[in-house]
Amino acid sequence: MAGTVTVPGANVPSTPLLKDELDIVIPTIRNLDFLEMWRPFFQPYHLIIVQDGDPTKTIKVPEGFDYELYNRNDINRILGPKASCISFKDSACRCFGYMVSKKKYIYTIDDDCFVAKDPTGKDINALEQHIKNLLSPSTPFFFNTLYDPYREGADFVRGYPFSLREGAHTAVSHGLWLNIPDYDAPTQLVKPKERNERYVDAVMTIPKGTLFPMCGMNLAFDRDLIGPAMYFGLMGDGQPIGRYDDMWAGWCVKVICDHLSLGVKTGLPYIWHSKASNPFVNLKKEYKGIFWQEDIIPFFQNVTIPKECDTVQKCYIYLSGQVKEKLGKIDPYFGKLADAMVTWIEAWDELNPSAAAGAANGKAR
Amino acid sequence: MAGTVTVPGANVPSTPLLKDELDIVIPTIRNLDFLEMWRPFFQPYHLIIVQDGDPTKTIKVPEGFDYELYNRNDINRILGPKASCISFKDSACRCFGYMVSKKKYIYTIDDDCFVAKDPTGKDINALEQHIKNLLSPSTPFFFNTLYDPYREGADFVRGYPFSLREGAHTAVSHGLWLNIPDYDAPTQLVKPKERNERYVDAVMTIPKGTLFPMCGMNLAFDRDLIGPAMYFGLMGDGQPIGRYDDMWAGWCVKVICDHLSLGVKTGLPYIWHSKASNPFVNLKKEYKGIFWQEDIIPFFQNVTIPKECDTVQKCYIYLSGQVKEKLGKIDPYFGKLADAMVTWIEAWDELNPSAAAGAANGKAR
Repeated sequence: MAGTVTVPGANVPSTPLLKDELDIVIPTIRNLDFLEMWRPFFQPYHLIIVQDGDPTKTIKVPEGFDYELYNRNDINRILGPKASCISFKDSACRCFGYMVSKKKYIYTIDDDCFVAKDPTGKDINALEQHIKNLLSPSTPFFFNTLYDPYREGADFVRGYPFSLREGAHTAVSHGLWLNIPDYDAPTQLVKPKERNERYVDAVMTIPKGTLFPMCGMNLAFDRDLIGPAMYFGLMGDGQPIGRYDDMWAGWCVKVICDHLSLGVKTGLPYIWHSKASNPFVNLKKEYKGIFWQEDIIPFFQNVTIPKECDTVQKCYIYLSGQVKEKLGKIDPYFGKLADAMVTWIEAWDELNPSAAAGAANGKAR
Repeated sequence: MAGTVTVPGANVPSTPLLKDELDIVIPTIRNLDFLEMWRPFFQPYHLIIVQDGDPTKTIKVPEGFDYELYNRNDINRILGPKASCISFKDSACRCFGYMVSKKKYIYTIDDDCFVAKDPTGKDINALEQHIKNLLSPSTPFFFNTLYDPYREGADFVRGYPFSLREGAHTAVSHGLWLNIPDYDAPTQLVKPKERNERYVDAVMTIPKGTLFPMCGMNLAFDRDLIGPAMYFGLMGDGQPIGRYDDMWAGWCVKVICDHLSLGVKTGLPYIWHSKASNPFVNLKKEYKGIFWQEDIIPFFQNVTIPKECDTVQKCYIYLSGQVKEKLGKIDPYFGKLADAMVTWIEAWDELNPSAAAGAANGKAR
């Protein structure tokens, strides 16, 4: 294990923030050469690698990283029949890593994401920015026009109610992407050459009551606050849909955060997204989602979680019931998904017994 | 009148955007030397200057600008007894300019605001950016993580519902400030040296259901869509409160925009705010607002405008009734303010008879 040894010349704080409280979760089907570029920032942390696809394949991890790796056989062994809730042949399998982690914070990143540079040409330590985002409050109840009021050189502007200036606990930090933007297949097809070259120097809270498209490529969250809602659904092998895993998680997470008065931030940090996935393959995965989401969004915009649901688990179980009842009409898939949501919570509580006990007593927060 | 003549070397498009459809409204108590710096950008447009304070004082306007100027005597003459709704000895008087304009768009700016520079050192044509903001749609119903999806080089990200990609008409464009941030008196007192040096290269829609602190320093709007709600309230001379004029307008405007499915944007353009007002004077003006707003914000967060209110005028009259009923309990001031809101609408309709007729028939939109 790398410990707190800093790499000469690298941009790492001498004691990395939350070194023993954060796991990096990486879903992959290939050798993790991309970690070389992240070494100065990631090496002090523990990695949880979730190997997708053929479990007999060996995934090479560069020397010097501290990691545990789970393939499909491991998932089946650990979860038994409940392994059915973990997707196969889809990066949605990453949420297994959230479940087996024992840390308070998770950062998850795709293996085609590299270190981006800020406008001054300096390498961006994405993880450090996510940690800053998670450790400072959010402002979901009122909009601050100068963006993050807790940032150095900024504050709440005139007219911001003083009673709201303590903010809310931050549950999620959603980072962005330079180079290849996270577009759907139709937009990829229409704009094959579009690249995101705009560095927007801001972190903002997504207001209460507003949904957003959460991308799993560059995402951090507080496992204690929202972990059980970070289920990436049923995608890939044997399912009628793909590329909606992170979206599904984002919609569930956001309505639960709103209900529990937790904050969700988006903006910095950027990573460098290296290559666009195949738009034709993506279209095949997405096309059902593209019309289903026209019903799913109003569903999430209108769902009201009852007051008695005072833990993430209770909220999530309530949501699963609503999914079955309201979305089940669209397609039998949502009945299966609703069942998988329940299985996910059961598996989560099995692997995280102390949190589960707290949740059952309404003490998770 | 300057017409479309361009100033040599200046950064003006050969035919300025909306030249005959936009008025610039400036409230002032002093000579308008600040216009010299804005000449390349403002000279093609018509100015409406609202002179505050002593009407016998002469305000000097630099040569070559096309303007009309109203002092208190003019306001009293034009509005008669209804002039009581226009504040005196407070920049809230600017809303008189919105009322007498005959144009579709308004840009309003304070006379201590100068041309800012973007990170490349180029002068920012604030007005041009506001016009772009107003002429492109807003996205109030769902959050786009790559900010304004209509901007060159950007789009809607994966997971953004296709049915919402047409967006909504933009009613308001709220610009920001470099150098002196728009802080309240307590923050000014605590952080006398703080300057806003961060240029955030983004325009975003404030989501439906979310309130924001609208600053009148650098603000543009579509008069046809939202003009009658842009009332800056009763401030200054004879009133118990100041520096909440734009905030009040912003809260009313936002709930009405939400009700009528109109968009409100904030972000670019920046202006250079040259000097901080006196925090001690400001505290005296603000202190009642600071505790009143703790009730005002929940009021606006919870108010529901009935479906029958299908014009801005009807919405505004409904709001005035709610203000009297719900906020009147806090202080008799809100009873007076509610009455002034009604007077404002009456005066607006008198000066804008065709719009009023359309509004009465529910055709304003």
